[in-house]
Amino acid sequence: MIIVMSHLATEPQVAAVVDKVKEIGLKPEISRGEDRTLVGVIGSNAYAYKEAFSHLGGIKEIVQITKPFKLASREFRPHDTVVDVGGVRVGGEGVVVMAGPCSVEGEEMLLQTARHVAGRGAKLLRGGAFKPRTSPYTFQGLGEAGLKMLAQARSETGLRVVTEVMTPGDVELVARYADMLQVGTRNMQNYSLLQEVGRSGRPVLLKRGMSSTVEEWLLAAEYVLSQGNRGVVLCERGIRTFEPATRFTLDLNAVPLVRELSHLPIVIDPSQATGRWSLVRPMALAAVAAGAHGLLVEVHPNPAEALSDGAQSLDFEGFDRLMADLGRLVDAMSRELV
Amino acid sequence: MIIVMSHLATEPQVAAVVDKVKEIGLKPEISRGEDRTLVGVIGSNAYAYKEAFSHLGGIKEIVQITKPFKLASREFRPHDTVVDVGGVRVGGEGVVVMAGPCSVEGEEMLLQTARHVAGRGAKLLRGGAFKPRTSPYTFQGLGEAGLKMLAQARSETGLRVVTEVMTPGDVELVARYADMLQVGTRNMQNYSLLQEVGRSGRPVLLKRGMSSTVEEWLLAAEYVLSQGNRGVVLCERGIRTFEPATRFTLDLNAVPLVRELSHLPIVIDPSQATGRWSLVRPMALAAVAAGAHGLLVEVHPNPAEALSDGAQSLDFEGFDRLMADLGRLVDAMSRELV
Amino acid sequence: MIIVMSHLATEPQVAAVVDKVKEIGLKPEISRGEDRTLVGVIGSNAYAYKEAFSHLGGIKEIVQITKPFKLASREFRPHDTVVDVGGVRVGGEGVVVMAGPCSVEGEEMLLQTARHVAGRGAKLLRGGAFKPRTSPYTFQGLGEAGLKMLAQARSETGLRVVTEVMTPGDVELVARYADMLQVGTRNMQNYSLLQEVGRSGRPVLLKRGMSSTVEEWLLAAEYVLSQGNRGVVLCERGIRTFEPATRFTLDLNAVPLVRELSHLPIVIDPSQATGRWSLVRPMALAAVAAGAHGLLVEVHPNPAEALSDGAQSLDFEGFDRLMADLGRLVDAMSRELV
Amino acid sequence: MIIVMSHLATEPQVAAVVDKVKEIGLKPEISRGEDRTLVGVIGSNAYAYKEAFSHLGGIKEIVQITKPFKLASREFRPHDTVVDVGGVRVGGEGVVVMAGPCSVEGEEMLLQTARHVAGRGAKLLRGGAFKPRTSPYTFQGLGEAGLKMLAQARSETGLRVVTEVMTPGDVELVARYADMLQVGTRNMQNYSLLQEVGRSGRPVLLKRGMSSTVEEWLLAAEYVLSQGNRGVVLCERGIRTFEPATRFTLDLNAVPLVRELSHLPIVIDPSQATGRWSLVRPMALAAVAAGAHGLLVEVHPNPAEALSDGAQSLDFEGFDRLMADLGRLVDAMSRELV
Repeated sequence: MIIVMSHLATEPQVAAVVDKVKEIGLKPEISRGEDRTLVGVIGSNAYAYKEAFSHLGGIKEIVQITKPFKLASREFRPHDTVVDVGGVRVGGEGVVVMAGPCSVEGEEMLLQTARHVAGRGAKLLRGGAFKPRTSPYTFQGLGEAGLKMLAQARSETGLRVVTEVMTPGDVELVARYADMLQVGTRNMQNYSLLQEVGRSGRPVLLKRGMSSTVEEWLLAAEYVLSQGNRGVVLCERGIRTFEPATRFTLDLNAVPLVRELSHLPIVIDPSQATGRWSLVRPMALAAVAAGAHGLLVEVHPNPAEALSDGAQSLDFEGFDRLMADLGRLVDAMSRELV
Repeated sequence: MIIVMSHLATEPQVAAVVDKVKEIGLKPEISRGEDRTLVGVIGSNAYAYKEAFSHLGGIKEIVQITKPFKLASREFRPHDTVVDVGGVRVGGEGVVVMAGPCSVEGEEMLLQTARHVAGRGAKLLRGGAFKPRTSPYTFQGLGEAGLKMLAQARSETGLRVVTEVMTPGDVELVARYADMLQVGTRNMQNYSLLQEVGRSGRPVLLKRGMSSTVEEWLLAAEYVLSQGNRGVVLCERGIRTFEPATRFTLDLNAVPLVRELSHLPIVIDPSQATGRWSLVRPMALAAVAAGAHGLLVEVHPNPAEALSDGAQSLDFEGFDRLMADLGRLVDAMSRELV
Repeated sequence: MIIVMSHLATEPQVAAVVDKVKEIGLKPEISRGEDRTLVGVIGSNAYAYKEAFSHLGGIKEIVQITKPFKLASREFRPHDTVVDVGGVRVGGEGVVVMAGPCSVEGEEMLLQTARHVAGRGAKLLRGGAFKPRTSPYTFQGLGEAGLKMLAQARSETGLRVVTEVMTPGDVELVARYADMLQVGTRNMQNYSLLQEVGRSGRPVLLKRGMSSTVEEWLLAAEYVLSQGNRGVVLCERGIRTFEPATRFTLDLNAVPLVRELSHLPIVIDPSQATGRWSLVRPMALAAVAAGAHGLLVEVHPNPAEALSDGAQSLDFEGFDRLMADLGRLVDAMSRELV
Repeated sequence: MIIVMSHLATEPQVAAVVDKVKEIGLKPEISRGEDRTLVGVIGSNAYAYKEAFSHLGGIKEIVQITKPFKLASREFRPHDTVVDVGGVRVGGEGVVVMAGPCSVEGEEMLLQTARHVAGRGAKLLRGGAFKPRTSPYTFQGLGEAGLKMLAQARSETGLRVVTEVMTPGDVELVARYADMLQVGTRNMQNYSLLQEVGRSGRPVLLKRGMSSTVEEWLLAAEYVLSQGNRGVVLCERGIRTFEPATRFTLDLNAVPLVRELSHLPIVIDPSQATGRWSLVRPMALAAVAAGAHGLLVEVHPNPAEALSDGAQSLDFEGFDRLMADLGRLVDAMSRELV
C-alpha cells in the first residue's frame, strides 16, 4: 500500500502518517519527490489497514498494490490446477462439455437429453433441481425429486452431475446426489454458502456474480479454497452492462485474464449469458478459441416447451452442430475434448 | 405481452403463433398494420410463457407489457405503506434516521455511539453482528455476542435495532434480538433467505442489489410480501457503474421512481454507496430532498480505529452537522423528523 | 507512478526497470519490502511514460498516483471559480437556474417560454438550435434561424443564452448569438471542438459524457482551460448504467466529488438525465441539496406538442412548483438564487 | 408502438389517447384485455411521436416495437454487404486483417511495420495521424505529415490505408490519402462528422461508441448510409463496464448479434478493447471464431518505445504467432484469409 501525500501536506502531517504506520505494526518507507511525498507501507496485509488512515490530514490518495487473494493466485501456484470431478478432469489442455436442461422438469426429458449429449461427447450433465427465480410466481424446481432424477441419469449414461445449491442447509443433501456443486451468480457473495460448499469437499463450479469484478470473483474462490477445498472451477456467465440486446454481456476477456492471474480452470456458460439460442454456438466457439477449459450449455429436447429459459436452450440439432464445429476447432488449436 | 411478427412473416407463421397462444390457454388478439402483424396475448401472467414462442418462425420480437410484481405495486395499493418498527413509523411524510457503526466492535463503542445518535434524533440503531466481507481474511463480525450488545443498547437508549442476517439458518436467532432484519445487497436475490425473513413476521430492510434494476428489487420485495409479511422497507445503497471515484454510484433517481411504482417506503444509505465520509452529508441531504423516507448512516466514535469501513463513517461531529442541516431541510419541505 | 515488481522478480529485472527510468530522464526511488520491491518514479508527468515499461519482465503492476489534470484541479486553484456569463455569476454560493425548451421550435413558443421562466427567476435561457439526434430521421433543429430567435428572446427578457454547438466550424456562428456555448454529452471527447470553444473566449457549459468518469470529464475541461479560457461550467446530465427505468442515471455523487477535486462550478440537468418529467422536480431539489451551483431544466409551454423530448419537459405549472420549492430549499441552506 | 393503459384508466382517458393517435395521422387499434386496454399505433414511424402521449392521463407504459434503423437492417437487405476498400473485399466469408501502429510516429517505423505485416498476410495498414487523446498534454499525432507517410507505405507495400478523421473540416484532407476513413469511438455520435464522411463516398470504418448500444451504433451507421454511402464496416472496440482489470470490455456478443440484425460487415479491435497485449491474441481468435469479418490489430516494431498505447501493441513476434494461429482457425471453420 502506498500513501500519497498532497503536495500541500505539511511535515507534521507526513509525520503523523508515519507514526500511524508504525503504531499498527507495519513498516513505513518514505520517498520524497519534487511534487509530493509518498509513504510506502510494507507488509503483505497492509491494505486491510487502509481505513486507519482515512481521517488523517494531508493525504491525497491511498493506493493498493497487492491484490488480496492468495490461494487462488498464479503467483501462489504457478501450474494449472486440474479438478477431478468423479474421474473427469477439468482444467489443463483438455476442453470439457457440460450440457443439459436449464431445469430438471421430469424423468423422461432428462434421460432423453442425457443420452443425447453423452452420445455427442459431453462429460457432465447440468440441470437445476433448485432454481433461483427472479419472480416468486415462476417455477422453482423439483427439489430432491429432481436430484434423484439426475442421479439416475448418471447411472444410465455415466455422465457426472453438476447442479446448483442455493442455501447452506441444502449442501449436504445436494452433495449426496451431485458430483459437483454449482454456486450461482446471485450467490457468489453468499459467504455462508461459500464456506459450506468449501467444507463439503465436493468440487465447486463457482459462477461469476453478474456484477462482480474478476478480483471479487477470485476472492469468492478464496473463501472456498481457504476451507481446504482445492476443487474450484470458475464459470463466466455474463455480466451486467448497459446493453439491452442480450440478456447479459458475456465477458470473454475474463478467460485469458483469469488464466494469467490464477491457476484455476475457467469454463463458459454462453446460454445464460446471451439469453438467445442463436448466439450460443458462436459464443461457445469463441470461448474455446480464447482458451476456456470447457463449456456449460443448455440443451432441451423441445425448447419451446421448456418451463424455464427455453429461449436460450439449444435443441438436439443445434447441439450436434456445436459439437461438430467444436471438434474441428479443438483440433486446429492442438487441444482435445476431454 | 405482444408478439411482433417480422414484416416477412408468412400467414402460416402467424397462424402457428396464434395456435400456440390458444394451446397455452391464453387469448390472442391480432392487429394487422401496414408493415407487420402484432399478436397481443391477454392474461395477467402471459409473459411467463414468453419462452414458449422463442423457437417459432417469423417472430421479430416479444415485448413485455405488464411488470411482474403485484403486491409491491402502487397499482395494487395506491396509498403509502407505513411500516411499524417496534413503534417507530417508517414511511409516509416523516423522515427517520437510522445510525450506528458499520460493525458492532465492542460494548463500549456501541453504547457510546447509540447514546450519541439517540441524543441527536436517530430512532433506530444500525450495526452489523454478522458481516459479509469480500475477503475471507478480514473481520467477519462478533455474531451472537454482537446481537446481545445491540439488544442492550436498545434497553439503555430506546433505539430500535436493525441488523443484517446473512443466511436462513440465522433468521430465528437474529429475530430474537432485532426489531428489523436487514437483507444485504449481496443477498437481495438469495431467495431462500427472502422467504425465511418473510415468514419471520419481522419488518425487513431490503437493500437493493448492487447491480439490480428497480424492477428486480421490487420483485425481491415481492418474495417477502408473498409470505404474508407486509413490513418491507427498501434501501438504496449504491449501484455498480463504470465510475471508479466513488465506491458505488448512489442512485437517487430510485427515490422518486420507487415512489411512483410502489407504495413501500424507501430509505437511503449514503455511507455504503459513496465509501467516502466527505460525501455522506451532501448525499444524505439530497436523498431527503428527493423524497426519501429516511437515512441509514454509519457513525463511529473514532472512524480511524474502525475495524471495517472507517473511511465512510461519520464521526460524532460530522453526524451532528448532518442532523442540524437535516432539521432545516425537513422544515423547508414541510416534513418532519420521526 | 509506482512500479510494483512481482515477488518472483529477479535482481536483473529490477535493474532493467531502474535503468529504463533513468533513460527516460526520470528519477527512480527503490523500496524493498518483505514480499516484493517497489520502484517509485518521481516527476510530475511520469505516468505518461507508463507504456515504456509494459514489455519489461518481472513487473506485476504499474500504479498511477498523480491525476493528470492540473488547471482544473482544486490543488492548483484552491478557491471556487465563479464564471461570468454576460453578467450572471455562475459558481460560488449562489444557485442559478437555466431553463427553456429542449429545441427552439419557433419564435412564439420560445418567447412565451422565455418570458415565463424569466418571471419566475431563471437567469439563462436554454434551447437547442443545433440538435444531436440518435436517428437521422428525427428533427435536427432550426440552425441559424433558431439562434436568431434565442438572441431576440434575450433582448426581450434579459435572459442570457446558452445553446449547443456541435462542430468546430459552427463555433464562430454560435458565439455570435450565444452568451455561453454548450458542448453536449456526445461531444465531450470531441477534442477539435473543445479546443475551438476554448479559443472562442466564450464561457463553456461542458456536459459530462454519458460514459465518462469524473476524471475524464475534468480532463476534457482541461482541454478548454489549456486554451486560456477559464470560463468552464461543468454539467452532469446522467450516466449510462444497467438500469432501464430512467433514460440515464443522474449521478449526483458527482456534485460533492467535483467540488472536492476541482474549483469549477457544477450544474445539473435533471431533464436529460431522467427522461421523465415526473422525476425532474425531486432530482432538481436533490441536486441543490447536494451542493450544485445551478440547474438546467427543460420547460415547454405544451410538452405534449414538443418536437423533441417532450416527455422530460416541465410545463409552466410544473416549473412554478419547482421554483417555489427551490426558493424554500435555498433559504434553508443559507444560499440564494442568483 | 403500443400504448399500455393502466388498469385504472377510465374510458375517457382511453378515448383521449385514441383521439391523439388520429390527430397525428396514425391508425389506432384497440385491444381490451381482462386487466387493461392496449392501443396499438400502426405506422412505420409511430415511435417518433411517442412523446405526444407523455402527458396524457391513464397511460402505464409506451412500448416501442419497430427498431428505428432501416438501411442498416437485415430486414431491408437480406444478403451480406461486402465493402470494397481499394480492391480489398471486407465482408462475406473472408477474414481480413488490418494491422499497424497505434500512431504514425515516423517514416522508418511505419515502413518497417507495413512491410512486416504485409508479409504475414495483412491487407490494410492502420495508423493514426490525428489522435484523440484523453489528456491535452500527450502526443496528438503528426497530422498531414503522418498521412503522407501512410500513403508512401501504401505505394511500397500495396497495403490499403485506414486512418482516423476527427472533424468534418479534415474529411477532404484525410480522404485524399486514405482508402478508408475511420470514425473513432469518441465520435460515433458526432453527427456532423458522420454526415461528412457519408458524403465523401469513401468506405467508412465506424467504431462503436464505448457506451453505445448496438441499436445506437446501427443508427450511427444509418447516418452514413442515408448520405448514399453504402460502404460502412462496423468495428467493435470494447465497451465501458464496471470491470477495471481490462481497459474496456470487448463485447464479442456484438458479432453474432450484428450479423443477425444487419447486413453490414463487422470487424474487431482487440488491442484498444483490452489495453493489454497479452490478451490480444486470444481475443482476436475468439472474435473470428464468433464470426467476425476481420481484425484491427496494433503492431509496433518496439512497443516499449511507442509514443502511444505501447502496452496494447503486439511486437512482430506476437503478430506472427497470431497469424499462424489464425490461419489454422480459419481453415477449421472453412473460411479463408482475404
